[in-house]
Amino acid sequence: MGCTIIGCGKKLPKLDVANDELSKLVDTSDEWISTRTGIRSRRVCVNETNVDLAECAARQALGWEEDGWAARRIAPEKIDLVIFSTVTPDALLPTGAAAIRRRLGLVNAAALDMNAACTGFIYGLTIAESMMAAAAPGAPGAAGRNPIRHALVIGSERLSRIIDWNDRNTCVLFGDGAGAAVVEWDETKPGILSWFIRNDDDVDNALTCMNAFDTPQPFTEAGIDPAALELPDPSFASIHDEYEQTERIAAGAPHQVLHMHGQKVFKFATKAMPDAVEEVLRRAGLGIDDVKLIVPHQANERIIRYAAKRMKLPLERFQMSIAHRGNSSSACIPMTLCDAYEEGRIQPGDNVVLVGFGGGFTSGAVLFQA
Amino acid sequence: MGCTIIGCGKKLPKLDVANDELSKLVDTSDEWISTRTGIRSRRVCVNETNVDLAECAARQALGWEEDGWAARRIAPEKIDLVIFSTVTPDALLPTGAAAIRRRLGLVNAAALDMNAACTGFIYGLTIAESMMAAAAPGAPGAAGRNPIRHALVIGSERLSRIIDWNDRNTCVLFGDGAGAAVVEWDETKPGILSWFIRNDDDVDNALTCMNAFDTPQPFTEAGIDPAALELPDPSFASIHDEYEQTERIAAGAPHQVLHMHGQKVFKFATKAMPDAVEEVLRRAGLGIDDVKLIVPHQANERIIRYAAKRMKLPLERFQMSIAHRGNSSSACIPMTLCDAYEEGRIQPGDNVVLVGFGGGFTSGAVLFQA
Repeated sequence: MGCTIIGCGKKLPKLDVANDELSKLVDTSDEWISTRTGIRSRRVCVNETNVDLAECAARQALGWEEDGWAARRIAPEKIDLVIFSTVTPDALLPTGAAAIRRRLGLVNAAALDMNAACTGFIYGLTIAESMMAAAAPGAPGAAGRNPIRHALVIGSERLSRIIDWNDRNTCVLFGDGAGAAVVEWDETKPGILSWFIRNDDDVDNALTCMNAFDTPQPFTEAGIDPAALELPDPSFASIHDEYEQTERIAAGAPHQVLHMHGQKVFKFATKAMPDAVEEVLRRAGLGIDDVKLIVPHQANERIIRYAAKRMKLPLERFQMSIAHRGNSSSACIPMTLCDAYEEGRIQPGDNVVLVGFGGGFTSGAVLFQA
Repeated sequence: MGCTIIGCGKKLPKLDVANDELSKLVDTSDEWISTRTGIRSRRVCVNETNVDLAECAARQALGWEEDGWAARRIAPEKIDLVIFSTVTPDALLPTGAAAIRRRLGLVNAAALDMNAACTGFIYGLTIAESMMAAAAPGAPGAAGRNPIRHALVIGSERLSRIIDWNDRNTCVLFGDGAGAAVVEWDETKPGILSWFIRNDDDVDNALTCMNAFDTPQPFTEAGIDPAALELPDPSFASIHDEYEQTERIAAGAPHQVLHMHGQKVFKFATKAMPDAVEEVLRRAGLGIDDVKLIVPHQANERIIRYAAKRMKLPLERFQMSIAHRGNSSSACIPMTLCDAYEEGRIQPGDNVVLVGFGGGFTSGAVLFQA
């Protein structure tokens, strides 16, 4: 209650890659991809960086551009917090959030990056909402915290850099993009009514991507016997073992590529989505009929159709954007939310649910009143 | 008020690298390093991963091991939230936090990774504290949020993988390690009295590390003219330009190495530390004489000495650990806090300040009563 979305923006890279382009790289076809995933094309970065996309989306959310949707223009010094959700940061240092702070002149903002896989934007909103609520005037202990009245929450990805363009099971699914929202603390508004975040163990390593470390330390050539390292469980002595990627890397695959067992993700996602929607409704004391629109993570049209069926809802209640974007991880939800605002599908007083799921496994939802 | 540290743990990798070892790699000496930085040796991972170290530290903080310090044993199902701060994650997916959740059986925990450079553990504590406070029984809107009574906050780094072992200005400074703390919401305890997080723009790119992206997309060979990309500011069209690393990479330096202008960081850090301590004291209505111990980020002994002088405090009021560890980024503060507990320097009722600074620039402090 009080944390209100007052702006929303999105940015896609310029290069549009149709399914036919991918069939030149791997054994696939437009028909195969579109019938199984709902995807017809996706945008792919060329010279644009993750932060470039995020900056454009943020400027719209702040009401500085004609595109996007914003209740009003927010001055840069009003932003107290930047949360930048990404799986694919341009840099380890500085963070994407720090780069955005610098580029946009958000001189009063604390800034941090976070990663909760494709559910990152949802997690980011829950952090912003909690920090605002805890620091709200009159809240116990508020004087001991950063006062946060306006936060910029971003989901931005350059997944194209971690795609194995020789793997037809994954390269057809993903795209690049960025979405952003500005939230304002206003106790007279309902705003975010409830939220829910949850993890489940990805025990089958269904969705993994190693980080590329290209500078091994020079002090030991072959390493040390893991048994000598006094680690708690020898079976976990190496993350290469844990994520079962040793053989792929030894066979010459690039270190930092996304690896996915689609069926296992499908099984998880089609349950996690309805569960998360049900839980935010329960927490707010509302029913599904009170919800105008659901903005789901866009991993695969089939996942959303299946989840809609479980929820006994027509697909029209879901905002869809996958056909010409694919899955852009934490950017999907804020970009698709921006679409909904731009198309006039969200009007003041409407209840909207954002719902996501992702690697790890993460899942969650946010219910807000526009 | 209410968010109380009830356990603390740390883990260092086994391999100890003395200054003399580094003088075999680059033109430096034990005398040069130790007099200018206070560092005599540092630990470096061999087969241990970032998550391996974090797991060991977390087990101590949970009271499952003899090492570390814990008020009592916390059962795995009690942990509601895992925040894993790191600059150097093993994997992009799953997150380090998700890996810890799975390894330790934290079946009720939501889990996320975050990056606020060397100040990450401080930022992580502020997120945990806010989420607990916002969800505390009786807080307005609490029913709409995840109830969080116990959180595990980790700072864990494998910096050795992003060190340029040919750069004598940086390779002598850093080490690997992990620290962790368990915080409990208990409204009868003072716990965290105040906190403060802040960013400043790193306008000189004083501390940078690109992310290694080794799978460029195959659709355009030479890229597209940045002017055609409709980005807001052509001068920022490429992060390679922004962080001035193009030439270094073109000259054959590995992509993913840390780059630092020590003097610029020194100037920032020696001001940011006293400022952050002053601000948390002001927010809690306390003076510096009310503080028993300061646990600072360990980047360079000279920075801490200089900051102590500015604060008119003897070095004895600061917990030091740099001599045999170096700078392990977000792991420094929780590891050094663990030292203080193990050495009996923190007793019930003592006021303690954690204070950090890092790339981006980030800075911040947490004031708590033990």
